[in-house]
Amino acid sequence: MDPGHENQGSSSCPVYVHNPHLKTMKEDVLYHFNLGTSTHNLPALFGDVKFVCVGGSPWRMKSFIEYIAGELGLEDPKSEYPNICAGTDRYAMYKVGPVLSVSHGMGIPSISIMLHELLKLLHHAHCTDVTIIRIGTSGGIGLEPGTIVITKQSVDATFLPKFEQVILGKNVVRSTDLDTELAEQLLQCSNRLNQFKSVIANTMCTMDFYEGQARLDGAFCSYTQEDKQDYLAKAYASGVRNIEMESSVFASMCKLSGLKAAVVCVTLLDRQKGDQLSGSHQVLHDLQQRPQILVGHFIKTQSLEIQKAVGSGNE
Amino acid sequence: MDPGHENQGSSSCPVYVHNPHLKTMKEDVLYHFNLGTSTHNLPALFGDVKFVCVGGSPWRMKSFIEYIAGELGLEDPKSEYPNICAGTDRYAMYKVGPVLSVSHGMGIPSISIMLHELLKLLHHAHCTDVTIIRIGTSGGIGLEPGTIVITKQSVDATFLPKFEQVILGKNVVRSTDLDTELAEQLLQCSNRLNQFKSVIANTMCTMDFYEGQARLDGAFCSYTQEDKQDYLAKAYASGVRNIEMESSVFASMCKLSGLKAAVVCVTLLDRQKGDQLSGSHQVLHDLQQRPQILVGHFIKTQSLEIQKAVGSGNE
Repeated sequence: MDPGHENQGSSSCPVYVHNPHLKTMKEDVLYHFNLGTSTHNLPALFGDVKFVCVGGSPWRMKSFIEYIAGELGLEDPKSEYPNICAGTDRYAMYKVGPVLSVSHGMGIPSISIMLHELLKLLHHAHCTDVTIIRIGTSGGIGLEPGTIVITKQSVDATFLPKFEQVILGKNVVRSTDLDTELAEQLLQCSNRLNQFKSVIANTMCTMDFYEGQARLDGAFCSYTQEDKQDYLAKAYASGVRNIEMESSVFASMCKLSGLKAAVVCVTLLDRQKGDQLSGSHQVLHDLQQRPQILVGHFIKTQSLEIQKAVGSGNE
Repeated sequence: MDPGHENQGSSSCPVYVHNPHLKTMKEDVLYHFNLGTSTHNLPALFGDVKFVCVGGSPWRMKSFIEYIAGELGLEDPKSEYPNICAGTDRYAMYKVGPVLSVSHGMGIPSISIMLHELLKLLHHAHCTDVTIIRIGTSGGIGLEPGTIVITKQSVDATFLPKFEQVILGKNVVRSTDLDTELAEQLLQCSNRLNQFKSVIANTMCTMDFYEGQARLDGAFCSYTQEDKQDYLAKAYASGVRNIEMESSVFASMCKLSGLKAAVVCVTLLDRQKGDQLSGSHQVLHDLQQRPQILVGHFIKTQSLEIQKAVGSGNE
């Protein structure tokens, strides 16, 4: 037997939930997905999932599943990819082969609801060895627009690598570490593709798009252009190269659950040069393809390696 | 001239933005609405708006505009209400007569992006005397499911009436006061309707649906049933009767902008009795109609009064 295959089998790592109460529940309703353990056969529907890609926009996550189907040679002849969560408008979910694509809306609370239910879904479906990647958009600092940032550490608005949340009225601080090996693999993938520039750097995760990211164009602004530039310069000095709104809770929840996780965001503008996304929709649309091209290529490569390992094991 | 009409004219109150930088901008792109000052005639499109209703779900906000069109006798003969933000999937927006209906997604960051752009939209459109109401769903504490809570004060997870946000890396605390007269008017409206029970009470606004609301059914849970009940009992003792995820930043931003604001949420379950939303979809759907019925009735009454005042002034 091929040692790769041996490894594949013995290192089989389940998706962890950490909640003793779940065992005592007769059924588990994943309300915001409109799915549940007593209404759906989750192991049959999702048991083969190895890659989960998440992103804010439902349209982008539908486009991603169409793209990855092509990459993996798994196109539906009718090219129809039904929304698995069609019964709700909270999130959209698509699946092709081992790849699940799920939208999460904007901001930490929105992605956190989705991740709680996604982790339970993967757990109920007995999934193992799952890799999860957030593909998103962001504002860059000191980077050419279109550059991809693969997140090293997700930091808060004071540039510290932590996620604070309130549980039973008390502050709890969680780590925002991501998988360094996965980040490195994605960077190598981008270098091989050679279509756009990618860097590994820190990502600042904020609670607000306007005042929270030192923008001058919100409904409220009580600081100057100089204050803004000072703040962004401090962020840059601390290693931050882009700003978005979901990575900290994503990193923290994936780490707790044992999922290999990465954050891959394209920068739509350089925040030191402006605030508004006034580029043409076509240009912005093209830039938004980049994370999906990179992650699509990565998943294709990984899938081929898994197939090769399984193939040689079967010989 | 009718004194009501006189009043109507002289008390004309614009929607405030507080940002000196806006005046220096050649154009303002409201990116997440796919609208802008150089691409759209905002005063022509939105200048007559007097009521804005916002809610998490795009489907519910479309259903609201259909309902209010019927209430105001402004039905489109084709019954088509186009999504004004059709060029983006971030938010959905509908308008009929003086009523604007906008979705905001889930959680504080998501509604905050929408409100920044909505306030700028109302400002650019020179709107005056605007009333804004959030119609939503929530978990109740000690209330019969289906009861409506009209928010007195929005409080945080430690039951304090404040909203904390980080600007340029520093904590800023803002008030979450809502319009007490408007809340009282809505309660009277509900009493006149006599279709369901409404109360004025405090609403707790959290950053997370599972651990942040002491649920026992998330992917992670490190506390006991007893800890949960203690926390909910403390919330109840402090005057909290329901829990949701947007009211604090909604109250704080509306107060800053001078908008009359209210939060009207139906309770879908009693959190002291459970965590899961496992009721039939029909029952949940029916309960979700209640805020729209109440607010629809309120807007109808107000519109009639405005028409009466204008009518007698013109005599």
